[in-house]
Amino acid sequence: MGKYCFGVDVGGTTVKLGLFNTDGDLLEKWEIPTVTEDGGKAILPDVARSILKKMDERGMGRDEVEGVGIGAPGPIDSEGTVYGAVNLGWGTFSIKKEMQVLLNMPVEAGNDANVAALGEMWQGGAKGYDSVVLVTLGTGVGGGIIVDGRILPGSTGAGGEIGHMHVNDEEKTACNCGNCGCLEQYVSATGIVRLAKEKLAADGRPSSLRETSVSAKDVWDAVKSGDPLAMEVAEEFGWYLGKALAAVACVANPEVFVIGGGVSKAGEVLLDYIKKYYHKYAFTGCRGALFTLARLGNDAGIYGSAKLVLNG
Amino acid sequence: MGKYCFGVDVGGTTVKLGLFNTDGDLLEKWEIPTVTEDGGKAILPDVARSILKKMDERGMGRDEVEGVGIGAPGPIDSEGTVYGAVNLGWGTFSIKKEMQVLLNMPVEAGNDANVAALGEMWQGGAKGYDSVVLVTLGTGVGGGIIVDGRILPGSTGAGGEIGHMHVNDEEKTACNCGNCGCLEQYVSATGIVRLAKEKLAADGRPSSLRETSVSAKDVWDAVKSGDPLAMEVAEEFGWYLGKALAAVACVANPEVFVIGGGVSKAGEVLLDYIKKYYHKYAFTGCRGALFTLARLGNDAGIYGSAKLVLNG
Repeated sequence: MGKYCFGVDVGGTTVKLGLFNTDGDLLEKWEIPTVTEDGGKAILPDVARSILKKMDERGMGRDEVEGVGIGAPGPIDSEGTVYGAVNLGWGTFSIKKEMQVLLNMPVEAGNDANVAALGEMWQGGAKGYDSVVLVTLGTGVGGGIIVDGRILPGSTGAGGEIGHMHVNDEEKTACNCGNCGCLEQYVSATGIVRLAKEKLAADGRPSSLRETSVSAKDVWDAVKSGDPLAMEVAEEFGWYLGKALAAVACVANPEVFVIGGGVSKAGEVLLDYIKKYYHKYAFTGCRGALFTLARLGNDAGIYGSAKLVLNG
Repeated sequence: MGKYCFGVDVGGTTVKLGLFNTDGDLLEKWEIPTVTEDGGKAILPDVARSILKKMDERGMGRDEVEGVGIGAPGPIDSEGTVYGAVNLGWGTFSIKKEMQVLLNMPVEAGNDANVAALGEMWQGGAKGYDSVVLVTLGTGVGGGIIVDGRILPGSTGAGGEIGHMHVNDEEKTACNCGNCGCLEQYVSATGIVRLAKEKLAADGRPSSLRETSVSAKDVWDAVKSGDPLAMEVAEEFGWYLGKALAAVACVANPEVFVIGGGVSKAGEVLLDYIKKYYHKYAFTGCRGALFTLARLGNDAGIYGSAKLVLNG
């Protein structure tokens, strides 16, 4: 068994790369630009060149490297085939096979949100657990499900897409996915701002949020300083997300829910609002699930993809 | 590898047993009574004795038997430990270990609904698929999730408990589980009757259902003969279940949903109502999931538990 492995997180603008030892310590990380032109065909060769250069710099032989894991935004099955990644220009092909040819080393590939969940399980907020649901609250809402220490990719790579769970029958505005009433429309950073703006427009109540062009961070700062309108937004956020996670628990029954993404920087107060409604709606057998904050931030992807190749 | 395996389905009144070859053909099936007295302590010894007797009858050696799988009603983890089974009088103990001592053969154990899902995947409605959700519509609503050909038991054995997904905020009547508004309250046999009775009580419209003491079968028979009130019940049933399965798909993203239990005897018409609302609410990446009827009936448990021990 090699002593090292590489984790790669392919994003729309940059590719993050990390060199790990097999104990899970991040030894070095760096970035290269993502060249999306021409169907993104330069991306994997660029990644391979960067890894081989790093091995050369460190005088590292192939036999010392356990393999390379790659996370990318798009549906990717357990065989390492991506079924289109719009942001990268990619169509359908086997990331795993193409990268194996480029590197002559073991390669595994997975969806970026799923891989981030694996990273948080390995060295982050869910360290020590092997049955985990990660919810990423950013511009959108991503999710990743870990069962017995392994990603649940789903039959078409849509496993853990909990941002697109239908949660509101009254919604008239469409989500990016085309449906109306997706969880993402209420609990993403964008969704939280929308909930706040609706409340601000509904009446003339005083609120610190009237003084700014509202961001999700502003809302949570206002919650912490006791602003009643912001606290109503937080209740609504908690109601939507807590209830949705109770539904997730009836399916996957995880030990722990990890909340990540930009919105999670609000801290423990966020968990309090989620837990309040989770406990109200969860099936008795699932009520003991823990809630923690993600700990790896933007590095979750490189940690998780490194772990992906160690899982084999 | 042995040529045979046994599948055991422990119910509250009888234990069903099946002898299979490892290709999945059921060679013989029989039943013994379930003796629940005294904490159900006779159940496993009775099962063991019955299996050893069958092997003796057939002149079958231990080396010819791959092992014994056991399904039982209660939360059972992937190690074969049951955490209480009220209907059997059982507390918490390792079914797997106790049975291995009694039989000196490999044993696996799982929850009965999960094991039934595995059976339907192996030789039933989902044969040829390995990513499956089984929904059992009986007195209650059970569920089992199969990912990559294996049961998803969940961290506390509550994986696939989709009957207790919260689907109605307005509900004032409590489910058996203690929560209000569980899926089971609307789409089980009992739930369908309840929906029908509410509609019958709401106004004086003529309906063939007024002439009988309504059963779920009566409702579906009336649907097939074009009774408008019954068809409204079917729409409501489809709305609750289709929407809930769309939520399940955002988590587990199966290839196929299998609908079983007594209610499923209504046939394809049931699937039509479910699919109508599933397609309305499902995330685009999950919309291609298939819907089929269960095929193994009451034998799903013995098939699935046999497969459980073959999976190892």
